[in-house]
Amino acid sequence: MPEQKPKSDHWLRHRLHEIIFEADTPAGKLFDVILIISIVTSVIVVMLDSVVDLNLRYGQLFFVLEWFFTLIFTVEYVLRLSCIGRPSKYARSFYGVVDLLSILPSYVSLLLSAGKFFLVIRILRLLRVFRVLKLVQYVGESNYLQRALWASRRKIAVFLLSVFLMMIIFGSMMYIIEGAENGFTSIPRSIYWAVVTMTTVGYGDISPQTSLGQAIASLVMILGYGIIAIPTGIVTAELTFKPNISTQSCPECSSEGHDMNAKHCKFCGADLHPDKI
Amino acid sequence: MPEQKPKSDHWLRHRLHEIIFEADTPAGKLFDVILIISIVTSVIVVMLDSVVDLNLRYGQLFFVLEWFFTLIFTVEYVLRLSCIGRPSKYARSFYGVVDLLSILPSYVSLLLSAGKFFLVIRILRLLRVFRVLKLVQYVGESNYLQRALWASRRKIAVFLLSVFLMMIIFGSMMYIIEGAENGFTSIPRSIYWAVVTMTTVGYGDISPQTSLGQAIASLVMILGYGIIAIPTGIVTAELTFKPNISTQSCPECSSEGHDMNAKHCKFCGADLHPDKI
Amino acid sequence: MPEQKPKSDHWLRHRLHEIIFEADTPAGKLFDVILIISIVTSVIVVMLDSVVDLNLRYGQLFFVLEWFFTLIFTVEYVLRLSCIGRPSKYARSFYGVVDLLSILPSYVSLLLSAGKFFLVIRILRLLRVFRVLKLVQYVGESNYLQRALWASRRKIAVFLLSVFLMMIIFGSMMYIIEGAENGFTSIPRSIYWAVVTMTTVGYGDISPQTSLGQAIASLVMILGYGIIAIPTGIVTAELTFKPNISTQSCPECSSEGHDMNAKHCKFCGADLHPDKI
Amino acid sequence: MPEQKPKSDHWLRHRLHEIIFEADTPAGKLFDVILIISIVTSVIVVMLDSVVDLNLRYGQLFFVLEWFFTLIFTVEYVLRLSCIGRPSKYARSFYGVVDLLSILPSYVSLLLSAGKFFLVIRILRLLRVFRVLKLVQYVGESNYLQRALWASRRKIAVFLLSVFLMMIIFGSMMYIIEGAENGFTSIPRSIYWAVVTMTTVGYGDISPQTSLGQAIASLVMILGYGIIAIPTGIVTAELTFKPNISTQSCPECSSEGHDMNAKHCKFCGADLHPDKI
Repeated sequence: MPEQKPKSDHWLRHRLHEIIFEADTPAGKLFDVILIISIVTSVIVVMLDSVVDLNLRYGQLFFVLEWFFTLIFTVEYVLRLSCIGRPSKYARSFYGVVDLLSILPSYVSLLLSAGKFFLVIRILRLLRVFRVLKLVQYVGESNYLQRALWASRRKIAVFLLSVFLMMIIFGSMMYIIEGAENGFTSIPRSIYWAVVTMTTVGYGDISPQTSLGQAIASLVMILGYGIIAIPTGIVTAELTFKPNISTQSCPECSSEGHDMNAKHCKFCGADLHPDKI
Repeated sequence: MPEQKPKSDHWLRHRLHEIIFEADTPAGKLFDVILIISIVTSVIVVMLDSVVDLNLRYGQLFFVLEWFFTLIFTVEYVLRLSCIGRPSKYARSFYGVVDLLSILPSYVSLLLSAGKFFLVIRILRLLRVFRVLKLVQYVGESNYLQRALWASRRKIAVFLLSVFLMMIIFGSMMYIIEGAENGFTSIPRSIYWAVVTMTTVGYGDISPQTSLGQAIASLVMILGYGIIAIPTGIVTAELTFKPNISTQSCPECSSEGHDMNAKHCKFCGADLHPDKI
Repeated sequence: MPEQKPKSDHWLRHRLHEIIFEADTPAGKLFDVILIISIVTSVIVVMLDSVVDLNLRYGQLFFVLEWFFTLIFTVEYVLRLSCIGRPSKYARSFYGVVDLLSILPSYVSLLLSAGKFFLVIRILRLLRVFRVLKLVQYVGESNYLQRALWASRRKIAVFLLSVFLMMIIFGSMMYIIEGAENGFTSIPRSIYWAVVTMTTVGYGDISPQTSLGQAIASLVMILGYGIIAIPTGIVTAELTFKPNISTQSCPECSSEGHDMNAKHCKFCGADLHPDKI
Repeated sequence: MPEQKPKSDHWLRHRLHEIIFEADTPAGKLFDVILIISIVTSVIVVMLDSVVDLNLRYGQLFFVLEWFFTLIFTVEYVLRLSCIGRPSKYARSFYGVVDLLSILPSYVSLLLSAGKFFLVIRILRLLRVFRVLKLVQYVGESNYLQRALWASRRKIAVFLLSVFLMMIIFGSMMYIIEGAENGFTSIPRSIYWAVVTMTTVGYGDISPQTSLGQAIASLVMILGYGIIAIPTGIVTAELTFKPNISTQSCPECSSEGHDMNAKHCKFCGADLHPDKI
């Protein structure tokens, strides 16, 4: 195993780690860009391969490309394991599992004749694209959104719970009112209808036929239409809220409204924290 | 009846009340958690029982589980009545009625062969889940949303009334333009179409066929699409609004609406806090 | 004509005017409530009459009710004209025309065998419901929304114009790509599809069949889905904006941030407008 | 070529430039209004010409109008080229290309029997309508929206990237779960379904049939329904943001981000306005 090699390998491993896991050196950026292109291309190959026409015509080419990318990702996986301090920890991490799952299906398909179920695993690899976002300034923006969503998680949970309960109640009501003869064949299917209607998706594969059913469906639609204002309001309120005003007043002129990061009073210039040195 | 028992029962009733109606003791929390799990499981059983395939295969099991949960909820209902001060008041309250309705159908079904119509009653029991929200910090958030909705109730009422009137007007117009031959068989059904379209649900079970009908439908869609901005704006404005208006009235001229940081009445100049020196 | 009667009629006309046109006396409120109930009921009768089944069964009853309400509205129309100062002005106002149109169809139907086209006119009468909103505090809220919409009318016009142009461009593109064989039989119909898709209504009566068409449709959907953020943002920004802070500073203590309606400085109590007497 | 004519033409060219390219003189406004009406009318003619019925009946008239507008736009194009300083630069600009493309198809159609593909080009001409917006105050509003969208471009990019990844992942999952027999014939088509569902458009041309598929579809719908709050929140936060941060930097420590009302640097306490006494 690479991680038990002698100390003379230390420099190589450190350099590899820098290239593979960090993105602030030119080599690291290049590695990330090549990897992203490989991931996107391999995903497109998998997608196109699923189209019957294209599979019949270019199946051979797709097969070759598939193995080309599998070999690239295999090398990448081995390099990652070899240059990291604790390979077993990485192997069990989310990205370690995704990395393994993105190459395993190809090898397994040599033994089995499966295929179909392993497509998703390759797709999961796309999640790695998000790591690239760390590269540039996107990280600040991404954190900003995550913070806003995280800060409003309880309000969103209450909202989702209310919506779920309404969907169950309205779905069950429609099952009783419309019945199996109008497509509402079971309560779970009726709840599926309620989800389709309340989120304003409206496939139309199941739609109410009785007058009472249509009246309640109208109510469900208006509810779903209006209720979207609530999560929007929550997230907006969180994003517009700027809590950077300190509650401290100036010890000299007693003025208030100083920023969190202020050291001196913006009105008289006195030290706001005289006891700190 | 338990509530007419001698005073020596007082402690037991008090302890039961604490467990059943309060959620801040370990026993009370445990009781609530067990109840929630029972409610959710019993609702899932009712749902699955409505699927024809599963009913044929596991009908026997569902029947046993049904009665198991009915007995649990019966015991809970009796205990609630026995440990509360005024059982008749609880029995007529919303949750008291829901509690009764969640067990009644099973007993009634022993006498009758009904069933279908009583499912909703059991579902209503799910509303009790919301009581659990009181447990933790969710209550603050829930109140926060309720306050915002309540504060904007008039604006929302005006908005809903306008939307209803538009739906009636456009529905009637489409009934006249499209007519029964294109699926707009009556004004109520045409209004149902207007609801489906304006809320952007769009089942497609009824859709305009004439050019004029499609032109008006386009207008209805764009109206419905753009108008959602209004309730969203109302709720957001309410959620972001941070009241800096004091509730104090002027001791001289009784005027209200003074800022939090005001020292003098902005109308007559009187000192707002004469006792403070 | 009533408006040319002698002076002794003055009191009666004044009293009638108070009852019919004002809503702040008990009699005026009662008149408004009765009128609203009549309007709503007459509209419901017209609606139900359009349902074939109900028309066959209760057609006779609906006919009687129809004439009952027509007579009520006729009396109301005559009274309005007789007690107002300038009847000809009222007769040509929006509500005057609506009032006339709500009774005319019934009389015309005595001569003609029309019917269908006059339903809308009766429906228009429903607009009168909004006058009732003036009754209570709803007016303030309604004005508040109208002001916000009016203030953002230019931004909304720019937004709508952009959306229209996108709909025309994408609709024309889809007409060329999909063609008549996939339901996109003409450019206006393809634009109708673009409206249905961009507003996220999605009937499914016309949907793209080719790969390129589905790709462009996906783009249109994501555009329509994301773009709704813009009017919502505009209205919300307008509703949250509270421009009631005067730019004037106190002549005594030079403090700022006084409300628009403030007469005295809220900090020192000095007169903010000493030159006004 | 007009641009190599002697100096005596200078005045004419200057005047023409004023009329054609500027909109603040009466003649310029008139020119713009006539042009807009011509564009809109010519687009409507193209649209109506695509309707089979109308083409059969009024094809002759449409043909004449088509050539009438083509000649108008040809004259306009030649005038634009002749009065501008650097005609080659204009010819290669966006509007120059649009201008050329809006007349070229008609002339090409004299040689070829094409037609269909050139409709879009004429439609592109509609984009010129936006130039008219510069006329009045619309420009300020339009810029305001553009600035808000531009300022939040990174957040919107992160949001769109997340949505795309979710669509790919859910689309691929549905391809595996539902399979070709339920309409999910390939991964690209399944991703198209995910777009239709997540944007809440919901055509219903492809809809899940299995229980697991409907469960995942419900999740996708609720995600798409709730997630719209994020771009709305971003745009609203950007539109409501009122910058009260001064652009002045501290003369002592060069720090930035001082409030509008700050007199002293909040970091080092130095006087921010030393020249003011």
